[in-house]
Amino acid sequence: MHSTKINPYRNKDHHGLDDEKIKLANRHYNLQDTVVRIGEHAIGGNEIAIIAGPCSVESREQIHIIASGVKQFGAQFLRGGAYKPRTSPYDFQGLKEEGLELLKETKATTGLPIVTEVMSPDMVETVAEYADVLQIGARNMQNYELLKQVGQVNKPVLLKRGISATIEEFLLAAEYIMFSGNDQVILCERGIRTFEKYTRNTLDLSAVALLKQMSHLPVIVDPSHASGRKDLVIPLAKAAIAVGADGLIVEVHHQPELALSDGPQSLTLEMFAEMMAEVTKIANALDRAVSQPLDQII
Amino acid sequence: MHSTKINPYRNKDHHGLDDEKIKLANRHYNLQDTVVRIGEHAIGGNEIAIIAGPCSVESREQIHIIASGVKQFGAQFLRGGAYKPRTSPYDFQGLKEEGLELLKETKATTGLPIVTEVMSPDMVETVAEYADVLQIGARNMQNYELLKQVGQVNKPVLLKRGISATIEEFLLAAEYIMFSGNDQVILCERGIRTFEKYTRNTLDLSAVALLKQMSHLPVIVDPSHASGRKDLVIPLAKAAIAVGADGLIVEVHHQPELALSDGPQSLTLEMFAEMMAEVTKIANALDRAVSQPLDQII
Amino acid sequence: MHSTKINPYRNKDHHGLDDEKIKLANRHYNLQDTVVRIGEHAIGGNEIAIIAGPCSVESREQIHIIASGVKQFGAQFLRGGAYKPRTSPYDFQGLKEEGLELLKETKATTGLPIVTEVMSPDMVETVAEYADVLQIGARNMQNYELLKQVGQVNKPVLLKRGISATIEEFLLAAEYIMFSGNDQVILCERGIRTFEKYTRNTLDLSAVALLKQMSHLPVIVDPSHASGRKDLVIPLAKAAIAVGADGLIVEVHHQPELALSDGPQSLTLEMFAEMMAEVTKIANALDRAVSQPLDQII
Amino acid sequence: MHSTKINPYRNKDHHGLDDEKIKLANRHYNLQDTVVRIGEHAIGGNEIAIIAGPCSVESREQIHIIASGVKQFGAQFLRGGAYKPRTSPYDFQGLKEEGLELLKETKATTGLPIVTEVMSPDMVETVAEYADVLQIGARNMQNYELLKQVGQVNKPVLLKRGISATIEEFLLAAEYIMFSGNDQVILCERGIRTFEKYTRNTLDLSAVALLKQMSHLPVIVDPSHASGRKDLVIPLAKAAIAVGADGLIVEVHHQPELALSDGPQSLTLEMFAEMMAEVTKIANALDRAVSQPLDQII
Repeated sequence: MHSTKINPYRNKDHHGLDDEKIKLANRHYNLQDTVVRIGEHAIGGNEIAIIAGPCSVESREQIHIIASGVKQFGAQFLRGGAYKPRTSPYDFQGLKEEGLELLKETKATTGLPIVTEVMSPDMVETVAEYADVLQIGARNMQNYELLKQVGQVNKPVLLKRGISATIEEFLLAAEYIMFSGNDQVILCERGIRTFEKYTRNTLDLSAVALLKQMSHLPVIVDPSHASGRKDLVIPLAKAAIAVGADGLIVEVHHQPELALSDGPQSLTLEMFAEMMAEVTKIANALDRAVSQPLDQII
Repeated sequence: MHSTKINPYRNKDHHGLDDEKIKLANRHYNLQDTVVRIGEHAIGGNEIAIIAGPCSVESREQIHIIASGVKQFGAQFLRGGAYKPRTSPYDFQGLKEEGLELLKETKATTGLPIVTEVMSPDMVETVAEYADVLQIGARNMQNYELLKQVGQVNKPVLLKRGISATIEEFLLAAEYIMFSGNDQVILCERGIRTFEKYTRNTLDLSAVALLKQMSHLPVIVDPSHASGRKDLVIPLAKAAIAVGADGLIVEVHHQPELALSDGPQSLTLEMFAEMMAEVTKIANALDRAVSQPLDQII
Repeated sequence: MHSTKINPYRNKDHHGLDDEKIKLANRHYNLQDTVVRIGEHAIGGNEIAIIAGPCSVESREQIHIIASGVKQFGAQFLRGGAYKPRTSPYDFQGLKEEGLELLKETKATTGLPIVTEVMSPDMVETVAEYADVLQIGARNMQNYELLKQVGQVNKPVLLKRGISATIEEFLLAAEYIMFSGNDQVILCERGIRTFEKYTRNTLDLSAVALLKQMSHLPVIVDPSHASGRKDLVIPLAKAAIAVGADGLIVEVHHQPELALSDGPQSLTLEMFAEMMAEVTKIANALDRAVSQPLDQII
Repeated sequence: MHSTKINPYRNKDHHGLDDEKIKLANRHYNLQDTVVRIGEHAIGGNEIAIIAGPCSVESREQIHIIASGVKQFGAQFLRGGAYKPRTSPYDFQGLKEEGLELLKETKATTGLPIVTEVMSPDMVETVAEYADVLQIGARNMQNYELLKQVGQVNKPVLLKRGISATIEEFLLAAEYIMFSGNDQVILCERGIRTFEKYTRNTLDLSAVALLKQMSHLPVIVDPSHASGRKDLVIPLAKAAIAVGADGLIVEVHHQPELALSDGPQSLTLEMFAEMMAEVTKIANALDRAVSQPLDQII
């Protein structure tokens, strides 16, 4: 599970983490970067991982259109929520089991591995039957019973940073999963809560550079939740790759204005195609690969 | 469950919550303050509720000494963690079932009702057998599966504000519990995360005044977690009562320097006695009652 | 300038400030509380200081009505801005010299000493001719040239905490003034910037308790700017006195809905009278005095 | 002063600023990007502007070595503080007039235009005699008298964002300068204050993307102050260019461990050379130019 790629900004002399505090997620534990393999693809290697899809699975037609679209433009993984943590009990809570079934169908037709969220310990087994990557949402970053449960499953875990978690707390949450037996952890920076009102959250790209330095785990960025605005997703995606992220997770919807959740931050398919083109420029400048659109491959 | 006490700072004309957004926790839903009754005592009525005890249940001797001590100085409820959410997997995680048993014993000898935390949906039933009040910790304020589960239990729930939850998100978390069928919710302000480094968190007493105005639910304050420093607990406890809180939850340990968790913020029994005396002065000045030390009653 | 009152929460053993870092403002420099005398009154002694008045001086009639009103209900000092720091250049910037003249007239008729803001070093001399207390606004807390200038004047300085200043930075700003020769510094907590949206800022009363412990300087609280909402001023004022503040500075306007600035957070004269009554209850419970309304004295 | 370069992420339909609130700094006021010309170079055009140098001017030898070094590796402008705003009055306050003289000498020998800070209105005239660009520090972003004074000078102004200023407040500070008559304003994002402790501040690159969209003014980034750590400067500099910044201002010292201020965040000359090489890759991928090292030009 480990490559030989070495982070150029890692400083072995100082700024390292206390080995007594953080053990398994510590760069000192594994000087090579961890590469998490999922089907034919990987997260943490030279290739930039692109996870795209809607916030919520809404219908068979919706998830198929979006999945085919993002695949066409180069996405290697499909995201889509079946169980949705929503701030209000009166908001759409997801299609639940039906959503998982639709994701399974979509995987069968597109071949895209599935990234989807699990919200409670007793649902881990069920969701793991459908998902290729189990997502732990920002609100659950310190839901320790859930962390311990996904730590006992043989599936990669995408762990989102809590909106006010320090970098140290974030790594300690990863430590819970690894300590429970699962070392296939992908860290995801998705914005922190600050006083700024023009954006939903504030993307913290210093954290990405620091995490790559202090830990061996792959780090991806979610510019959609970080900004809450589709017009910021492309520039932030470019910055994320430039700072050293191993991948992106972005929200895409064929009809954002009709989305049942997160419409304002969802890219259209056209914008997603533009993002891929822009991100490829940055990645290539840094000698990293990005999966290419199907029509450019064929 | 409702008294006739009206909050003097409530403003019916404006600053009210949107009735469509927050329904059951909204002041408009219940113009009278909700009073949650637990055994002989209540939270949300004229009497100031005092919940005291150690961060963690550590041993039979420890919990008995502290419980007897806080009862002697006027506490009406005993707090104590059996299941502990800890930032690091390497820290003491609580005595678990053994801790619940020790709390039960202590209740039998002191008569103090038990407030203890439940961390996952599948543990709600078990913890509810021992606890008089189920505590939802700050890290779990948006653990929606847990909120829904405690919403189906006929026990009061003490809901702590997340460290970076807005007041609106806090009320929406209460709404999840009430929407699931349980209207015995006690809100607890316990400090929010800010840039300040001299304190663990920043106690937000504006939130207490606002919550009393916008909601009918009882509101208590945790000055121990808010400050992280025993030398600030007494002045903050006084301020909490002055701003209109219905009670306090404080950490007390007979030997704080030996505590397995949260020692720096735990009051000694002597300091707890001093806190009770100080808080009583403020409460009485505002025509609210505080339970008196046993020796003053007898 | 020093009384013998000792802060009961001061802890000589720890939590003290580094004597090398903060010298003159450090509690270790002066074990007795500093009391700043202004005319017949004082700030930092047993009596709670009440500074009240409009955000801006708007007209002769306005400042006279408000000054007479607040005096009648017990205020000892008049606040009022002649030079106003405003976020937008298109907002009302104050009456400037004319405002200072009106404050002087008002002092002549009411006897109330004047607290008013000075915004730049070259205006210090002029403002000091009119003001009894020079106010440094939150935006200028780290305007070091201004701090050094007011440090050379023989007038008390009311130093407001910057909206994102740590307690340490706040004390170091006071240190600049004292280092320049002026030890008549009054610290003012007025809310810090956080993520919360229901209030303008978040009042940090832990800071008040800490400042009283770590420094010998008087500490007052501005509940008007801290909350930005008139409906929160009274409960926060009570909490401020309960936590140990030496006084309050509040915005009062006879017609808040017509105020040229800060109307939403200005108390009416009726509300100010109510605040005085409530604050007196808390102060008396803690054996501190509050100036009484004129009609109750006569 | 205006080029024809159009920001590709600007969205004319929405997310625009209120034209009544922000007028002169508003994108609507000038659909083309403002380009500020300084000597042979410009900020805001296609070429990435690189401003480098020490935090403080410390001695003739120090400033000459650093200036020659950064010029050799491609810097177009020299930064260096003569008047230093320091949190503590006991810290090094800068060489003042002597520092300005040394900057003048260095400009004579290297040809690099000078960027240096002015801290109070009465010093603007003097500093403007020496400086090519007047810097307003983060602590003075809302020092309105200073903003109005630099608004009356015919020199470009580099305006740093306050550590807790919203994007709107930042633009309103620029508005003060422009409203006073000076439209040569360069905006500088330099990190905001958050709860994170591993970095000095949190770099907000969303703000850069937003400012480029909402305003016509050039935007540069200071990765040195944003992170406070030299090991993060290079990745953050790359991200800044990727997100759309028009330039960088970085701290460089030939002997960071001996620097009188900001040593931990100062790049060595070797690291600066590496930064230039990395930044050039990103800029070129986005069809933007970077000045090349002298030895590569000749």
